[in-house]
Amino acid sequence: MTHADKAVELARGRHAAFLNQYAEMLRIPSVSTLPEHRDDMVRMAEWCAEELRRLGMTRVEINGTPGHPIVYAEWLNAPGKPTVLVYGHYDVQPVDPVHEWESAPFGADVRGEWIFARGASDMKGQFFAQMKALECLRDTDGAYPVNIKYLLEGEEEIGSINLPAFIDAHREQLACDVTLNCDAGMHAPDMPSITYSLRGLAYFEIELRAPGRDLHSGLFGGSVRNPIHVLAELIAGLHDAKGRVTLPGFYDRVRPLDDEERALLARVPWSEEEWLEITGAAALYGEEGYTTHERVGARPTLDVNGIWGGFTGEGAKTVLPARAWAKLSTRLVPDQRQGEIEGMLRAYLEANAPKGVEWTLKIHSLGPGAVMDRKSAYMQSAAAALEEVFGSPPLFKREGGSVPVVGLFQEKLGVDSIMLGFALPGDGIHGPNERQHLPTLFKGVEAYIRFLYRLGE
Amino acid sequence: MTHADKAVELARGRHAAFLNQYAEMLRIPSVSTLPEHRDDMVRMAEWCAEELRRLGMTRVEINGTPGHPIVYAEWLNAPGKPTVLVYGHYDVQPVDPVHEWESAPFGADVRGEWIFARGASDMKGQFFAQMKALECLRDTDGAYPVNIKYLLEGEEEIGSINLPAFIDAHREQLACDVTLNCDAGMHAPDMPSITYSLRGLAYFEIELRAPGRDLHSGLFGGSVRNPIHVLAELIAGLHDAKGRVTLPGFYDRVRPLDDEERALLARVPWSEEEWLEITGAAALYGEEGYTTHERVGARPTLDVNGIWGGFTGEGAKTVLPARAWAKLSTRLVPDQRQGEIEGMLRAYLEANAPKGVEWTLKIHSLGPGAVMDRKSAYMQSAAAALEEVFGSPPLFKREGGSVPVVGLFQEKLGVDSIMLGFALPGDGIHGPNERQHLPTLFKGVEAYIRFLYRLGE
Repeated sequence: MTHADKAVELARGRHAAFLNQYAEMLRIPSVSTLPEHRDDMVRMAEWCAEELRRLGMTRVEINGTPGHPIVYAEWLNAPGKPTVLVYGHYDVQPVDPVHEWESAPFGADVRGEWIFARGASDMKGQFFAQMKALECLRDTDGAYPVNIKYLLEGEEEIGSINLPAFIDAHREQLACDVTLNCDAGMHAPDMPSITYSLRGLAYFEIELRAPGRDLHSGLFGGSVRNPIHVLAELIAGLHDAKGRVTLPGFYDRVRPLDDEERALLARVPWSEEEWLEITGAAALYGEEGYTTHERVGARPTLDVNGIWGGFTGEGAKTVLPARAWAKLSTRLVPDQRQGEIEGMLRAYLEANAPKGVEWTLKIHSLGPGAVMDRKSAYMQSAAAALEEVFGSPPLFKREGGSVPVVGLFQEKLGVDSIMLGFALPGDGIHGPNERQHLPTLFKGVEAYIRFLYRLGE
Repeated sequence: MTHADKAVELARGRHAAFLNQYAEMLRIPSVSTLPEHRDDMVRMAEWCAEELRRLGMTRVEINGTPGHPIVYAEWLNAPGKPTVLVYGHYDVQPVDPVHEWESAPFGADVRGEWIFARGASDMKGQFFAQMKALECLRDTDGAYPVNIKYLLEGEEEIGSINLPAFIDAHREQLACDVTLNCDAGMHAPDMPSITYSLRGLAYFEIELRAPGRDLHSGLFGGSVRNPIHVLAELIAGLHDAKGRVTLPGFYDRVRPLDDEERALLARVPWSEEEWLEITGAAALYGEEGYTTHERVGARPTLDVNGIWGGFTGEGAKTVLPARAWAKLSTRLVPDQRQGEIEGMLRAYLEANAPKGVEWTLKIHSLGPGAVMDRKSAYMQSAAAALEEVFGSPPLFKREGGSVPVVGLFQEKLGVDSIMLGFALPGDGIHGPNERQHLPTLFKGVEAYIRFLYRLGE
């Protein structure tokens, strides 16, 4: 019986204790985007630091930033072994629409094999499982098989605003051989998978202004521009009938898929029925000429994430509004450049906003995409760990979501990230009733144990 | 000196008292569309009833309805004289965007020649001026020159939902020779005018549903329909490049303007500069081939009054929303039929909403437009009264707004409405900083005195 086997056995005996502690952290409403949760963000950072102290980290710091704190920790007593930088984020998305939740978003309600809470899957559950793996390794032989560093930020859901400067200022301290990024998932409970490609994100907000103030739509309707109409036209014009984004040059830098990679991706058993079930959509829709997996993983997309203007209360108000707004984001793939996308959007507004309508474009975040080396030794250790725990080799996937920090680590620390996490596609992250599959998370603890153990061999 | 001259003199001595009482009624926040103002609606109805009792009405009733109460009053002691039904509404629009008000929306702040309050112009000020005209007539000779009936409703801003049934149930009681509708205005402080044509209103709400729940726009964006995109396309498709509404059949029943009427309308001295100043717009825009006055007065229009969906808070949330909504209204001219418009809109959604997107269409209100006889004796009395008070004959105008009750009275009581009121185009009704020009309102009291006096001659 190896140390890893013993640590796994220990973990299996602690599920009830894990669940209690996990629920406790899920009850802290660490919503980074809402100012009213600022104190909760501090509480959550302190929770993380306290847990890292319990794990015997020899240095634990809560670093202030102009935004939310960054938690750093390290344990470097494994000379000659690789150094793994564990990345996670302790912030979560807002909970609206709150009335669509079946239990309180921060109640951590357990129903069947699932725990329901904002952040359960994205991603408190993931770094919690990673911490529990360390706990069991330590309780097995009093030390860790590799050197460990931790970087837990509180701004992932708002674009990791202060992370680049922090990394720049702490390059030495953060130096490592590989990053373990727990902000990841599997294809299905019985299908381990490793995401080796992530899309980038450029998130904007458009404001349109037409009349100088809100007007009566009866007295003035039909005589001046209605900014909602203009916004609708601008949004409608961003896609063509084939589902392609119309911004000139948008696809110019997109790296095409080769046959080998298309074949690899085709192995991931997404069925149309499954996708319909997960999304609840009545039909699939996307760019012509690509499979759904390719559409979300290897092709850039553009989505309006929010729109508002005029009267949105109950009943009727006959207003011709002065302003209208939209939040809009593009998911970018290698080798698109986020800065260029902003220029394309400005040029589009310049060319298409009609006379008499003013606009402003605000940037919420810009982050690059990333593709990792599928064949590295670290990647192979992760694959072997997953096979050991789940009984089958992992699928290799490209994912539609963005983890800007993966690109950041490539750029600033020169290391790849191993995306190893135990979320599932139907977890409802960012939506109501977010959940985490508990049996999968408990297996995740085992996979983290075996992965770290393999890295130290 | 006639009785009318004496009553006018009396009115001129009471401006300060009028202003106090006017401000008092403006401080009651009678917003009909918001459930939290239900008690204020009752208070406002009671204020009206109390004032009508003070005016010596021999019967004053507050009639309950499934919505807000209808105030009825009468004084029928002028045998052989015409019976005038005075119409008004005591409800007001909501105040949002509230942060754009420079003084409290229900504070009734007086600055210069203006009083600022929601409802000051639309239309508490107007029926208040009419009541003060009666007060001065009564205080002059203890009686009124004509028989008077009052009908004050509390649901005009939400489509007069319960008024048709009330009229049906009280046809005898409401019988009259002519209606005096105070929900009206003038072209400028020195340019009296009479509106003889109003547009109808059909107000709808569209809900679109695409995925079954809110999704993560990175993981799922580009693979299913985004209902905001679909809504934008549907809205963009409602107008063509010439500013015309594209609904098939929309213009089929529109009564064309003849040369005589176009010439009459052209006398109203709207300048493009004035319109730009009132609206605050940088440019005018509307249906090709028509003047601005024709566009808002004689042509049907369609405006989206509100739109919302997805994340609309501060910051960024990468959601692919499950739903999107729009409030949309059409202003109708004779002889369009509001029921047909609903059918056209349904057919449009049926034909253009893509597969995988469900929609529902909700009706908020449907009301006909109306054109009145410009040459009737009642209209001529109103014109003479205005000329007497303002020193010049009134302009005859078509107006873009809707006063559904005008069509209702034509249909159910068989009488025309004299639209006589003292709002001004720049009053900002339905928007922030609604105001009423006080010198114009005080002249309005005089005009009401002279109009009623002439009717009784």
